[in-house]
Amino acid sequence: MKTPLHKRRRNLLASFSEANIDVLLITSPPNWYYLTRFTGESGALIVSRHGATFITDGRFIVQGRAEMPGIRILQQKGSLWGSVGQFLKDSRHRRVGFDPAQVTVAQLGSLRKASGSSVKWVATVGRVECLRMRKDAAELAQMRRAAILAGEVVQTAIGMLKPGIREFEVGAEIEYQMRKLGASGPAFETIVAFGERAALPHARPTAKRLRKNELVVLDLGAILAHYCSDITRTVYVGRAPKRIRIWYQAVLEAQGAAIAAAKSGAACLDVDAAARQVLAGYRLDHLFVHSTGHGLGLEVHEDPRVARGQKQSLEPGNVITIEPGVYWAGIGGIRIEDDVAIHADRTEVLTRAPRDLIEL
Amino acid sequence: MKTPLHKRRRNLLASFSEANIDVLLITSPPNWYYLTRFTGESGALIVSRHGATFITDGRFIVQGRAEMPGIRILQQKGSLWGSVGQFLKDSRHRRVGFDPAQVTVAQLGSLRKASGSSVKWVATVGRVECLRMRKDAAELAQMRRAAILAGEVVQTAIGMLKPGIREFEVGAEIEYQMRKLGASGPAFETIVAFGERAALPHARPTAKRLRKNELVVLDLGAILAHYCSDITRTVYVGRAPKRIRIWYQAVLEAQGAAIAAAKSGAACLDVDAAARQVLAGYRLDHLFVHSTGHGLGLEVHEDPRVARGQKQSLEPGNVITIEPGVYWAGIGGIRIEDDVAIHADRTEVLTRAPRDLIEL
Repeated sequence: MKTPLHKRRRNLLASFSEANIDVLLITSPPNWYYLTRFTGESGALIVSRHGATFITDGRFIVQGRAEMPGIRILQQKGSLWGSVGQFLKDSRHRRVGFDPAQVTVAQLGSLRKASGSSVKWVATVGRVECLRMRKDAAELAQMRRAAILAGEVVQTAIGMLKPGIREFEVGAEIEYQMRKLGASGPAFETIVAFGERAALPHARPTAKRLRKNELVVLDLGAILAHYCSDITRTVYVGRAPKRIRIWYQAVLEAQGAAIAAAKSGAACLDVDAAARQVLAGYRLDHLFVHSTGHGLGLEVHEDPRVARGQKQSLEPGNVITIEPGVYWAGIGGIRIEDDVAIHADRTEVLTRAPRDLIEL
Repeated sequence: MKTPLHKRRRNLLASFSEANIDVLLITSPPNWYYLTRFTGESGALIVSRHGATFITDGRFIVQGRAEMPGIRILQQKGSLWGSVGQFLKDSRHRRVGFDPAQVTVAQLGSLRKASGSSVKWVATVGRVECLRMRKDAAELAQMRRAAILAGEVVQTAIGMLKPGIREFEVGAEIEYQMRKLGASGPAFETIVAFGERAALPHARPTAKRLRKNELVVLDLGAILAHYCSDITRTVYVGRAPKRIRIWYQAVLEAQGAAIAAAKSGAACLDVDAAARQVLAGYRLDHLFVHSTGHGLGLEVHEDPRVARGQKQSLEPGNVITIEPGVYWAGIGGIRIEDDVAIHADRTEVLTRAPRDLIEL
C-alpha cells in the first residue's frame, strides 16, 4: 500500500538520521492526524523503522482501531507517560526524539523515570511540522474550500451589521453559518469588534451594540475536513470620514504589497517588510503591532511565520495568511486578511471575498 | 482595596513559603483570569510580594491595561520567554516557581538562558489550581447558571432528534442555542453520537443521519461568563429493547450512587468506586472505560479528579461532574452526567435536566 499516509511516514523516517534518532515520540493531535488520520485527543504516537504504535486510554481504543488500520494500538496502564516510557524501555530503542516545544517539563520527567537510563532522550524541534508546511494537492484543494467557506460566512456576517445588533449575536451567527456550510467548527475564537473595541487585535465578542459611525472588525476561520481558514474584513458603519478612508487604503496597499512579495523563494521577513514599508509611507507603521502573517493548515498557526527576523524562504506548498492591521486605542482598528498558497510559478489567493472598504 | 482578586493573590502569596519560592511564574490563561481578570491569550504573569507584573506582546497591551488595573504591564522585547527571564534576572528574584505541567522543555530552556545562573527555577505544581478548586459564592452562582443553561440546551437538542437529521446539524444547533442564551461558546467539542458511534466516548459530530432504534449520546457544555458546565444525556429513538432499559437503569443507579457518595470529606476514589460497584452488580463494570468525573470551573477539566487512585478528599466549594457510562463496540453507549457542588453540609446537583430514559 502506498497511501499518502505511508508516504508521509516514510518522509518522516527519512529525517531520523539527520536528527540522530531511531524513534520519534509524537504528542500533538494535528501531527497524529497528519500521519495516521486519528482524530482523538489523548495518547502518544511512537514512530520507528519497525512501524508505528499508538498508546492511549480506554476512551480511544475503539476509535483508534477504526481510524488507524495497520497501526498498533496499546492501552496505557496507569499514566500515559509512564506507559510510553515503559514501552520504549521494553522495545530497546536507544535514541528517542521528542519535541521540546510540545513536551512539558513534568512529562519529560515521567518519561525519563519510566524509560530508565538505557533510553537517551533527544530534543528535536518540528520534525512533523516541517513536512506539514508543504501541502500536497489534496490538502490544497481542501484549504481552498475552507477559505472560500470563510469568505461566504464573512459576507453573511456583514449583511447582519445593523445599528443595535450585539457583537455576540454576530459571533453566534458566524459560527452557526460555518457549521451549516459543513465546517466542523471555528478555527479560533471568532473576533467581532465594534468601535473602539476594534483596537484590540484579539477582542472576543461582548454584549456591545453596534452604533452608527463605527469601525467593525470581523476575523474568523472555519475548520473544514480538518483544514483551517482565516479571514479578516473591516467595515465602516456609515459614511467613512476621510482619515478612515486613508487608513483603510494604507492597510489595503500594505496587504497587496505583501501578497506581491509572497513568492516561492522569498524570505518571510521580506514579505513582512513589504507590508511595513507601505505603512511607513503613511506614517502608520508604529500602529502595526503584530506580524504580517502565519502558516495555516491543520492548525491555525503553523510555520512559516511571516514576521520580522524570519529568514526562512517560502516554498511551493506553503499556505500563509497576509494580515496587516493598524490600531488606535480609543478609536478602533483596521485589518485585512487573506489566505495565500505559494506555488512554484505563482501565488494563489485562496480567499474570495471583496477587499474594498465597505460602508454600510 | 479588598476585592476578591486581592484576596486570591494574597492566598497565593501565603503559599510561597511552603513552596520555598519568592516569586511565581504563571503561564496558564485561566490562572491569569482567576488572579487578574485578564482574558487575553498570550503573555506571562509574575507574582511576588512586591506586586504583579504581566509581560505580553503588542496585541495585548491595550487590553491588558483595560482589564488589569493595578498590575504592571510590560511589552516583551523579542521572545516572551527571553523577556520574562531577563525581567526576573533584573528584578533580582532568587527562587522562581514554575509549574512543570504548564511549561515546556523548550520554554524552560529559554527562561534559564535569559535569567542566568543567579535565578533558581523551582518546580511547583498547581499553586493556583489548588486555590481554584474551592469556588467562592460568586463562582458557584455563576456555575449554577452555566449548568442550568446546558440543561436547557440539551432539552432543545433532544427536541430535534427526528430520524434523518445529521449529527452535525444537531451539533450546530446546540452551539447556536448556547450562544443565544448568552454563553461565550462551548466548553469543549460538543459530542453528538448516533447508534454505534455512541460507543466512542469522545465522538465528534459527523454527517451520519439518525435512524429508528438507535441510542443517541449528547454531551455538551457551555462557557457562561468564563465558567464551564458539562452535561450528558442518552436518548433512545424508538421503543427501547429490554436490555437497553436494563443498561440505562444500571448507569442511572451508578450515577445516583456516586452523587450520594460525593460528600465533603469523602475520598474521590470512593466516589468513583460507588459508581463502579453498581455497574459490577450488573456485570457491566468492564464496559465503563473512563473515570467517574472531574472538577469543573474556569476549565472543563480541573482538579479534583474523581477516579481510581485519587485519595484526595472532597472539600466545600468543589464542583465536579458525575458521569458514569458503558460502551459496546458496534452497538452504542449510554452515559449520564450532571454537575455537582460540594457544600459543608450537603451536595447540590447544579444540573436541572430530567435523567430518566427518554424514548422518542
